[in-house]
Amino acid sequence: MSVAPKGLNSLTTMMCGSCSNENAYKNMFMKYMRDKRGGTSDFTDLEKESCMINMPPGAPKLSIMSFSGSFHGRTLGALSTTHSKYVHKLDVPAFDWPIARFPVYKYPLHENLAENEKEDERCLADVEELIEKWEKKGCPVAGIIIEPIQSEGGDNHASPYFFQKLQKIAKKYNAGYLIDEVQTGGGPTGKMWCHEHFDLESPPDIVTFSKKMQTGGYYSKPEFLPDLPYRVFNTWMGDPTKIVLLDAILKVIKRDNLLSVVEKSGEVLMSGIRDLEAEYSALINSTRGRGTFITFDAANPKLRDDIVKRLLTKGVQSGGCGVAGIRMRPALIFQPQHAHMFLDRLRQVLAETK
Amino acid sequence: MSVAPKGLNSLTTMMCGSCSNENAYKNMFMKYMRDKRGGTSDFTDLEKESCMINMPPGAPKLSIMSFSGSFHGRTLGALSTTHSKYVHKLDVPAFDWPIARFPVYKYPLHENLAENEKEDERCLADVEELIEKWEKKGCPVAGIIIEPIQSEGGDNHASPYFFQKLQKIAKKYNAGYLIDEVQTGGGPTGKMWCHEHFDLESPPDIVTFSKKMQTGGYYSKPEFLPDLPYRVFNTWMGDPTKIVLLDAILKVIKRDNLLSVVEKSGEVLMSGIRDLEAEYSALINSTRGRGTFITFDAANPKLRDDIVKRLLTKGVQSGGCGVAGIRMRPALIFQPQHAHMFLDRLRQVLAETK
Repeated sequence: MSVAPKGLNSLTTMMCGSCSNENAYKNMFMKYMRDKRGGTSDFTDLEKESCMINMPPGAPKLSIMSFSGSFHGRTLGALSTTHSKYVHKLDVPAFDWPIARFPVYKYPLHENLAENEKEDERCLADVEELIEKWEKKGCPVAGIIIEPIQSEGGDNHASPYFFQKLQKIAKKYNAGYLIDEVQTGGGPTGKMWCHEHFDLESPPDIVTFSKKMQTGGYYSKPEFLPDLPYRVFNTWMGDPTKIVLLDAILKVIKRDNLLSVVEKSGEVLMSGIRDLEAEYSALINSTRGRGTFITFDAANPKLRDDIVKRLLTKGVQSGGCGVAGIRMRPALIFQPQHAHMFLDRLRQVLAETK
Repeated sequence: MSVAPKGLNSLTTMMCGSCSNENAYKNMFMKYMRDKRGGTSDFTDLEKESCMINMPPGAPKLSIMSFSGSFHGRTLGALSTTHSKYVHKLDVPAFDWPIARFPVYKYPLHENLAENEKEDERCLADVEELIEKWEKKGCPVAGIIIEPIQSEGGDNHASPYFFQKLQKIAKKYNAGYLIDEVQTGGGPTGKMWCHEHFDLESPPDIVTFSKKMQTGGYYSKPEFLPDLPYRVFNTWMGDPTKIVLLDAILKVIKRDNLLSVVEKSGEVLMSGIRDLEAEYSALINSTRGRGTFITFDAANPKLRDDIVKRLLTKGVQSGGCGVAGIRMRPALIFQPQHAHMFLDRLRQVLAETK
């Protein structure tokens, strides 16, 4: 709780990221239906009986909205909101839930302001249109899930404005606003939670986490908790031994001021890669990121794979993401001098490509 | 692998029971579709594109058959196969998958042979009928999941004959045969795996586990593994620290011959409770179980709750299951003398009820 996002005073621990999202969806479904019942959980006999055979009204037609390019996990509910790679999804049945367009920006951002603003508006209009379409289809949107940076999908960013407006739309339709910080949470963007960069007018309704937080789980507003026991539950409800690890990690983050280290190293990385981008503009482009959570694109997927391979021969392990992205995911202890070492190796690789 | 069910040479570790079932479903879906493609994974462009928006043919209409009264977990796919308590399911959307009738036997078994055999045949006929119905609905059954003892649902048993015939039906329709040993696995029935009691003509296709095994996961036949990388995957793929715990536990099970302890203590428990059942037939009935995995029913739910409460005042923690069941779930180190202590307390409680 010492690192809970502001305003989210309830904590549910889970085993992994997928389970965290799945159970957070359940919290949003239950909240949505409770609101429809006027705030109570007085179930009818028909609801109790029909849910047992997977039928409405007990198992209602409700949906979770996700975005093109998103990754929210691989269990069947989470997988229905994942749209990053076909190899994850093919052959697996999915819920027919709405998928809105995630902004696709032109880089560098400062040279494409007007166009990128238009892209925000297009995507936000798409969100509203789909919410109304699914409402008409009899499968209303009970929640919206979005990553603050689409990570598996290629480190796709959207503007603070986009996240602010999306929150307003969620409120308008009484849909839960879930920010999935499984990959971004825990410090790599220079803040404990990436959504802190967005200046939202109020906290999101739920924030899910895993990975750097050692155990899975989610923070939520109290009204997004079920009001009856055993509605969200399982054998382990997370793993206390991981909380001990997390406690030690949080102490080191504080003691060594690692969030500001991330910020400094991130600045060195970002400006260094941007310089290389200017110098080798035929090879790399679209450098983007927050903190050390940075990605640049290669001119094509083949070149990307080649750069990753050659970085490895120089002792640098990097990773591909999206179609042609090369992503940085250093640990929180990554210092500015490490950033310089990396930039030196990347320059060698790019120079050899010429 | 040292305790793998006979014939199941592949092992996938996961974090918990729900994830294990969810991912095992994916293995069955992928196997089913691979068979339909003639054993290859040559995906069409249409499949690759349609799966990304949750639509067939890439995200095909396929189903998993489960049984009334079953519990297979609480994430959205697993929850669609769970039918034990409405509080788990209400307000959560579910897949429209077939739910067959699980045998409901009359006890004591030896006095109701003919009737219970008829019940087996009725339920098996129901299975075939539903498989054909869902095939006609365009949503074929890719797999069948069943617990060897329906645990959360009330310790409901089915005969070895039922499980043998069910396997034959699964084979006939090329559906995977998944036995969920999350609650029964790891020794409490006197065998490492409860399905070893069933004399199946060949191993089941997949066996899932968790709880007593410390980590989640599943054993499977090699043909039920995906033939491409990253189709079933996640960040952690189980937890190595739990495997260390499990290793120590398995050594103690072997060293202290705990499976035969379970068998002996189970015999004492079973015959003792059956004696009490004969003596207090107006209060308790239907004693059933394997090893120390034993349950008896109270005459009604109110009496059940009352017996559980009064056992607690005498230092015995028991638990309710199903509508009026009281279940035994002792640890593997539970000795015959502990069984006698329990029987003594239970007798006191029943005597005080009279």
